[in-house]
Amino acid sequence: MSTLPQKNPRPLTSCPGPACTQNMDSNGGAGLRRECCCEPDQKQSKLYGVGDPAAMFSCDSPYLSSRGNIIKWFWDSAEEGYRTYHMDEYDEKKNPSGIINLGTSENKLCFDLLSWRLSQSDMLQVEPALLQYPNWRGHLFLREEVARFLSFYCKSPAPLKADNVVVLNGCASLFSALATVLCEVGEAFLIPAPYYGAVTQHVHLYGSVQLVCVYLDSEVSGLATHPFQLTVGKLEEALQGAASQGVKVKGLILINPQNPLGYVYSPEELREFLEFAKRHALHVLVDEVYMLSVFVDTAGYHSVLSLDRLPDPQRTHMMWAASKDFGMSGLRFGTLYTENQDVATAVASLCRYHGLSGLVQHQMAQLLRDRDWINQVYLPENHARLKAAHTYVSEELAALGVPFLRGGAGFFIWVDLRKYLPKGTSEEEMLLWRRFLDNKVLLSPGKTFECKEPGWFRLVFSDQPLRLSLGMQRVRQVLEDQSPVAKNPPSCQPQDPSGQDK
Amino acid sequence: MSTLPQKNPRPLTSCPGPACTQNMDSNGGAGLRRECCCEPDQKQSKLYGVGDPAAMFSCDSPYLSSRGNIIKWFWDSAEEGYRTYHMDEYDEKKNPSGIINLGTSENKLCFDLLSWRLSQSDMLQVEPALLQYPNWRGHLFLREEVARFLSFYCKSPAPLKADNVVVLNGCASLFSALATVLCEVGEAFLIPAPYYGAVTQHVHLYGSVQLVCVYLDSEVSGLATHPFQLTVGKLEEALQGAASQGVKVKGLILINPQNPLGYVYSPEELREFLEFAKRHALHVLVDEVYMLSVFVDTAGYHSVLSLDRLPDPQRTHMMWAASKDFGMSGLRFGTLYTENQDVATAVASLCRYHGLSGLVQHQMAQLLRDRDWINQVYLPENHARLKAAHTYVSEELAALGVPFLRGGAGFFIWVDLRKYLPKGTSEEEMLLWRRFLDNKVLLSPGKTFECKEPGWFRLVFSDQPLRLSLGMQRVRQVLEDQSPVAKNPPSCQPQDPSGQDK
Repeated sequence: MSTLPQKNPRPLTSCPGPACTQNMDSNGGAGLRRECCCEPDQKQSKLYGVGDPAAMFSCDSPYLSSRGNIIKWFWDSAEEGYRTYHMDEYDEKKNPSGIINLGTSENKLCFDLLSWRLSQSDMLQVEPALLQYPNWRGHLFLREEVARFLSFYCKSPAPLKADNVVVLNGCASLFSALATVLCEVGEAFLIPAPYYGAVTQHVHLYGSVQLVCVYLDSEVSGLATHPFQLTVGKLEEALQGAASQGVKVKGLILINPQNPLGYVYSPEELREFLEFAKRHALHVLVDEVYMLSVFVDTAGYHSVLSLDRLPDPQRTHMMWAASKDFGMSGLRFGTLYTENQDVATAVASLCRYHGLSGLVQHQMAQLLRDRDWINQVYLPENHARLKAAHTYVSEELAALGVPFLRGGAGFFIWVDLRKYLPKGTSEEEMLLWRRFLDNKVLLSPGKTFECKEPGWFRLVFSDQPLRLSLGMQRVRQVLEDQSPVAKNPPSCQPQDPSGQDK
Repeated sequence: MSTLPQKNPRPLTSCPGPACTQNMDSNGGAGLRRECCCEPDQKQSKLYGVGDPAAMFSCDSPYLSSRGNIIKWFWDSAEEGYRTYHMDEYDEKKNPSGIINLGTSENKLCFDLLSWRLSQSDMLQVEPALLQYPNWRGHLFLREEVARFLSFYCKSPAPLKADNVVVLNGCASLFSALATVLCEVGEAFLIPAPYYGAVTQHVHLYGSVQLVCVYLDSEVSGLATHPFQLTVGKLEEALQGAASQGVKVKGLILINPQNPLGYVYSPEELREFLEFAKRHALHVLVDEVYMLSVFVDTAGYHSVLSLDRLPDPQRTHMMWAASKDFGMSGLRFGTLYTENQDVATAVASLCRYHGLSGLVQHQMAQLLRDRDWINQVYLPENHARLKAAHTYVSEELAALGVPFLRGGAGFFIWVDLRKYLPKGTSEEEMLLWRRFLDNKVLLSPGKTFECKEPGWFRLVFSDQPLRLSLGMQRVRQVLEDQSPVAKNPPSCQPQDPSGQDK
């Protein structure tokens, strides 16, 4: 299926993961290679897929090791699109016909608030302890602040402890470290798909760990209440499927709120998944980087740390970062919360390579402890702006007759454009993506998220009104030029399917 | 030889590296386990040793992978000593009988200068681009500044280029990334020993790369002009020895100025080593983190970037950081300079996991461009203080009749205490180290640096006068209580052996 050079293709590899579209949260999903075709076989009904990114990459450099070449390939494939976008980036005055980026999941709505807070005089503190070698778990003053912060915002039944906190330079690093300390080379994590595709490289580049996709689909059947619903049955099936292919699964990754769906798991669902993991002695990595970006009150978000009694606390590891909830992906702050001291220690040992500046640790502590500003200024304003942008894009999509999910969390809408693909193939999805790009608007196609149904796109709405409306205008132009070839699929029409924000 | 649990001991392993004393630049060399004995066999005359840190580690955690357990072991073994020191840290007022740290290689002499500079208003700039996803190679404004900075201070024959710069959060990360992209699992780098022992874990924890030690000794024989002199002959011998054990060597690590020796390589030596590497198609990683900490004018330091024509520029990679030369190991800034774009790109791809904050990138750029402050304030004062501290310790050691090398660079003196070891064993070296610690002064024993001659210690002098004199007083007490059992060895008496700072 793939036209990329195959390197020692392994028989068990049914899908190499979304390797072709890496880094879409940092380059706007522009890293797409048309020749890369790695969706699961549409003809088979398998509900899982084992991804081995090492099975394919581009031409070798004689200076690099084989893994060095794979690592470089991940960059190059992303770089291709990155260059496309950055060579023609939209600027209101300098390049008004440049590309509008509705692909990168960044919150660009609150720089005014953040710039003000980060420029206050309490932020610039320089003392010897901050300039010297740190404790690689993070300075105690910051870990204490993180524990208090998570206790409050995750609504933990008891105060969380600084000893269970490890801070580092972002959740990408945390995925890398956890994959390495929990798995042997070639072992795997389960992950429900569609999922934030960069996880593929985060667990693979250093850790050589694979992902086993638990494929979800949009059809609402049986006991399901919404599209792309994860169930324990699907998890069991994927786990058995991996085992049948000789792949050892060591854990389950849950992203909650979900990216790209925008849904949140109910406490009951969470508990079921944690019980499933406990039965199989699987670690659970719960990535909650959008936990404060739930902008619809009725979404009913619950952190894993809010649960009264975790089924398997020693194998439950929560991740959070400032990238999304504080719109600062460039600040590089992430944190692990785990009761397992072996895991915390092993991750801390790798934090020699994921350390963040003492000066930034001071800034983060100041930010996290400023509960007045967060509660009375930042969060209300941020949520209001997110909601307004979401409402605007929702209405635009509705006017276009395009179905989409309404999750009420995150910076994106998961949009169903399947009716614009005559044959419903992945190649057509890429053609449509190219048409958007040719019309100077960047979206992320479903393939980026390992979605098994071609035709879904993630559209990021957390941008300034001017850019957002121009971007939507360009989306509209492409779709209006392109007659739909079918009605909306039954599962996604006529109204929005999720109902989570009703 | 080792009493630590052996895990799949490999026949080719003659020395597991200084695994017992990791992280001594971040915890003061306190991570020493008396039961760990990993020096090369004194009875054999081999001038090399292949280190496989995976061959030994402590008890397993059921929650971690085998590599996770090794990673945790590296932390625990360091932590043991770290706790000892930090539980009883010296404080002039609060704990005057606490431990004085002359083990950690940090420059504590210039916090006043640095605090002043970093507190200036130009340092706190918050703009959207700094808060958004960066180019993982580093912001262009910083890479341009680094290129100008290195051009000037390394005296490059032509201006260096921003395209050849990759910035990340410290040289530890850079070792990790380079090891991974240049070597397959189990391959190796040559490194002259004694060497900064943390390199062992930097290339191993993520990269599973080994070090092949090129053992140097203190005897000045043949054409040698100073103790611990590296020659091409020794490099060739180690390379052949590794090959004979089936270990593939991919590169050579040179630390210049040398840690722990304090020497610098002459341009002629550098060129010879680079020619050797070229003959064998080896990469050369030149770690120059102490390049601006040469406090003796006559030391004659030359950066690898100052050479007129590199023998193999595509395999020559220079490393620098702010940790030592700007006394800011907690700031987490390091940089790679390489003409090899494949290597730069592959390292940049891993920089997703080694990124530093946009705010810190701004601060570093401001610092590096402030040539007036660096040249007229910081460097002269820093060098004067380093020199004064070095002179003080040198005189103390001379008064004690203790030989030592005078390198004229770095923060440390390599001290010959062999005459205090009755049998000249590694166990006695550890006993002496314990005696120092019991007398509340922390030094780093030669084992930490994989020195094959027991009895050498690294003593860090870059501390405030009060702490330094108290530390030296405690050193003196231990040595005066301990009669020397032998004369100073011929190579190191009566005067200082190196003569490099004469």
